[in-house]
Amino acid sequence: MKARVLIRPKEGILDPQGKAVERALPALGFDGVSHVRVGRLVELEAEDGADLEALCEKLLANPLIEDYEILSTGSESG
Amino acid sequence: MKARVLIRPKEGILDPQGKAVERALPALGFDGVSHVRVGRLVELEAEDGADLEALCEKLLANPLIEDYEILSTGSESG
Repeated sequence: MKARVLIRPKEGILDPQGKAVERALPALGFDGVSHVRVGRLVELEAEDGADLEALCEKLLANPLIEDYEILSTGSESG
Repeated sequence: MKARVLIRPKEGILDPQGKAVERALPALGFDGVSHVRVGRLVELEAEDGADLEALCEKLLANPLIEDYEILSTGSESG
């Protein structure tokens, strides 16, 4: 199974990278973009039964300050 | 419009973060996970007509070494 894990800072947690992007936008001529949050994307292939929840909790995300979301993106293996 | 931008290293480009995750897995007791690639996730709210393609090319991604994908995730604004 191919999976995507989306990791983002929790609501209310300061996101300096997102703020930096937001501030850079007007200088580059982009208007109308707001609420920018920057997180991480992890793509992986897992055998059936692999415990992705535990993997996220222990390795990929910091559950104190980050939310994660696991999306399955297909069953191809290779 | 809410949008998600997924940015990942291009095929063939070395991904040391992904390799580091892969190597950490067996030590933590996770088997059967492979092909780990680590990229970035950017979530934002854009007004209609905002040119997200150009935004990705110029600010969010490095098109030489990264692929990006823009996903619309709804039309709520707030």
